[in-house]
Amino acid sequence: MSKPLILVVNDDGITAPGIAALVDAMKAIGEVVVVAPDKPQSGMGHAITLNNPLRLREVHVFEGIVSYECSGTPVDCVKLAVGKVLHRKPDLCVSGINHGSNSSINIIYSGTMSAAMEASLENIPSIGFSLLDYTMEADFTAAANYARGIAQQVLEHGIPKSTLLNVNIPRLPLEEIKGIRIARQAVAKWEEEYVERLDPFNRKYYWLTGKFVNYDHGEDTDEWALANGYVSIVPVQHDLTANYAISFINENWKF
Amino acid sequence: MSKPLILVVNDDGITAPGIAALVDAMKAIGEVVVVAPDKPQSGMGHAITLNNPLRLREVHVFEGIVSYECSGTPVDCVKLAVGKVLHRKPDLCVSGINHGSNSSINIIYSGTMSAAMEASLENIPSIGFSLLDYTMEADFTAAANYARGIAQQVLEHGIPKSTLLNVNIPRLPLEEIKGIRIARQAVAKWEEEYVERLDPFNRKYYWLTGKFVNYDHGEDTDEWALANGYVSIVPVQHDLTANYAISFINENWKF
Repeated sequence: MSKPLILVVNDDGITAPGIAALVDAMKAIGEVVVVAPDKPQSGMGHAITLNNPLRLREVHVFEGIVSYECSGTPVDCVKLAVGKVLHRKPDLCVSGINHGSNSSINIIYSGTMSAAMEASLENIPSIGFSLLDYTMEADFTAAANYARGIAQQVLEHGIPKSTLLNVNIPRLPLEEIKGIRIARQAVAKWEEEYVERLDPFNRKYYWLTGKFVNYDHGEDTDEWALANGYVSIVPVQHDLTANYAISFINENWKF
Repeated sequence: MSKPLILVVNDDGITAPGIAALVDAMKAIGEVVVVAPDKPQSGMGHAITLNNPLRLREVHVFEGIVSYECSGTPVDCVKLAVGKVLHRKPDLCVSGINHGSNSSINIIYSGTMSAAMEASLENIPSIGFSLLDYTMEADFTAAANYARGIAQQVLEHGIPKSTLLNVNIPRLPLEEIKGIRIARQAVAKWEEEYVERLDPFNRKYYWLTGKFVNYDHGEDTDEWALANGYVSIVPVQHDLTANYAISFINENWKF
């Protein structure tokens, strides 16, 4: 039996330690091809490059692994990987391991999760992995271990059509992680602040900062799982329709 | 009674005809403030600017309307508008009118809809408007007319919490539009192609192109409404959890 073909992408760029850990984890279970951004692309959401040409360059970053760096966004990487590198759909796409959480509403800003979402739109089973440690010195041992196990489950048992997985791993040694929780996305948000500064020419500029606030008291959420020492897996869909609101509008509006 | 405060944003940039049409439509029903990108930002999805400082500059583009241009993405515009321009939440945020469709899965790539989504995450009632004509010469008469009517409905009757609206308007004269359909997001996708070219130094580059394909035969979708001469309104939620998949995983996986 031939090994499954696994596409590895990320948003922190091809030289980030997180993608190296993911490549290592996937090598054991499949044939790995990497297409990743040539620079950090955090917070790029589902951006695609429409007004600029894209570059794709073969690089030798991972021993024995076919790898390309791309000048575009994480979503561009997936599109180019399928259309111009692999010339067929991989059996699995894994994105990450992200340096920092993509739990709850973070999914919407996340290049890591948008890359996984794009692969899923192409009907490729797809998983995004994120470790709750944004530093470049983060220890990916436990995260890589869970990534391999979860990827194997997806390859063996599948996930429903039009569904991808948002996996977050707590910042704990492997032996302290209590297991896996299949969870829903917690209701949480960023309370933003902007730092206001003056440039050398006395013109104002702003840096985005903020504080993540969890408003959700449920014990079935990703935030609860992570705070209690579990790996969280949120299955994610493409359909954003708020079905509950269709009848509300039909009942209440006058048109 | 004081007029409602309406924040107008877009992704085509502050000089696009579509935002001028939206400002005009909103002037009649509220106090309008504009914060929009200083350049086109189509396809930016929910990108935010993390690694660069942001600029905000007051400009005089719309007669009698307080307006700012911002160096960032559509989502940055909303964050800066709330935090640094308005210093309070507006009563309504409207985004657009986009030059081109944001129906179905286009929502996920759309800067217009991501700006509306961001306002909604801040608990601001929020609507994105898009006209099915991507040209700069598009006629926004009918779209502006519907935008005003729909904004009035939201101000009077509200929309459920954590819900925003994705409004698309067919490319038809006002008298040929048959009315409004409250719809669900059609199952559709882009079949991508990359144009491959050589630069003057003989290095390959790629341009993204593609074809939109609707796989959904339902008559309750936004695609059906638009193809049949209706304005489509899809209510949109923030929660991406695929609840149907939680039990699937719990039943089928071994862990």
